[in-house]
Amino acid sequence: MNSHTEYMTFNTEKRRDYINITTDIEKALAKSGIQEGFVLVSAMHITAGVYINDAEPGLIADIDEWLDKLAPLGPDYRHHRTGEDNGDAHLKNLMIGPQVMLPITEGNLDLGPWQQVYYAEFDGRRRKKLIIKIIGE
Amino acid sequence: MNSHTEYMTFNTEKRRDYINITTDIEKALAKSGIQEGFVLVSAMHITAGVYINDAEPGLIADIDEWLDKLAPLGPDYRHHRTGEDNGDAHLKNLMIGPQVMLPITEGNLDLGPWQQVYYAEFDGRRRKKLIIKIIGE
Amino acid sequence: MNSHTEYMTFNTEKRRDYINITTDIEKALAKSGIQEGFVLVSAMHITAGVYINDAEPGLIADIDEWLDKLAPLGPDYRHHRTGEDNGDAHLKNLMIGPQVMLPITEGNLDLGPWQQVYYAEFDGRRRKKLIIKIIGE
Repeated sequence: MNSHTEYMTFNTEKRRDYINITTDIEKALAKSGIQEGFVLVSAMHITAGVYINDAEPGLIADIDEWLDKLAPLGPDYRHHRTGEDNGDAHLKNLMIGPQVMLPITEGNLDLGPWQQVYYAEFDGRRRKKLIIKIIGE
Repeated sequence: MNSHTEYMTFNTEKRRDYINITTDIEKALAKSGIQEGFVLVSAMHITAGVYINDAEPGLIADIDEWLDKLAPLGPDYRHHRTGEDNGDAHLKNLMIGPQVMLPITEGNLDLGPWQQVYYAEFDGRRRKKLIIKIIGE
Repeated sequence: MNSHTEYMTFNTEKRRDYINITTDIEKALAKSGIQEGFVLVSAMHITAGVYINDAEPGLIADIDEWLDKLAPLGPDYRHHRTGEDNGDAHLKNLMIGPQVMLPITEGNLDLGPWQQVYYAEFDGRRRKKLIIKIIGE
């Protein structure tokens, strides 16, 4: 069994942003040399998420609007009593999920034709970290 | 370390459908011969999901109604400007999630008594694919 | 490749409860001796979830309120025709997800500074089970 670990950092200009990291994951996989296994891609903060979906700008705007409708910015969350203002970002993280697991087959990410991996930032303008961990052979 | 990879295809008659695939996963596991490890079950399309829950028809109808309430079919999603009409299906996929990871212990899926694995189709009537990837020993 | 499997049981006094299990997972990892790999933490029931977020009581109350707003207790779910009254708990499970996968690096959980793992009970006052499964080397 082999393993390979990498970290990515983000510091987005906008509070919320959606960044396609598929190519970064493919590069990490190539470095690992692993042919069969799994890649875990997981946000290391609790106000950001990772998801798989389409690289279509209209859809990304739909996703952002939908997340903010179901987990709205602004209301008086109890969490804000700590001095934070990002209660919505914690809920958006729970909604979309913090991580995905990608299958590796014959040395490649075994994804469908439209599957792209996104880092979803919900409370940017500060340094955030993500882990790419590959296990296999 | 051993690995085993299988694909399933679906082409549902209905736009939305919920298919119990637990037995299919058990068969793939038996073929793999793996005793201790993980099974990744992941939709390869971005308008379908995979989840674990109960094989109870009333509950499945509740799940369908609930998903359509929170990510409704029909409204004018920006994504529809591309000619698609399945914006809701992308959001339902994000809501329920595209994948699950199942533990394997002593050669069996190590699930609780009511845990059944479902493929959730949100934009059917076309050919869709799913991957079952097993890693272990 | 090595593996290590443990089970936890819960029997909460309240219908809904949120229990920090990070230390339990760290203890299981220490017993396993695994240095590089993955830990799957997965509820074995379909009315409970597992998530990663902050150990902040205000936020936990926000999460509970938010889940109950989007998947409310009480309404006449079709599932209740079976005699159950926990339709909401099934939907809350789907909302938050049943499991997380944790990376192991140099023998430790490779988590960010605020990441804590929670067992989320949505239909307590009965015995429930969770699996911790570690694979690696």
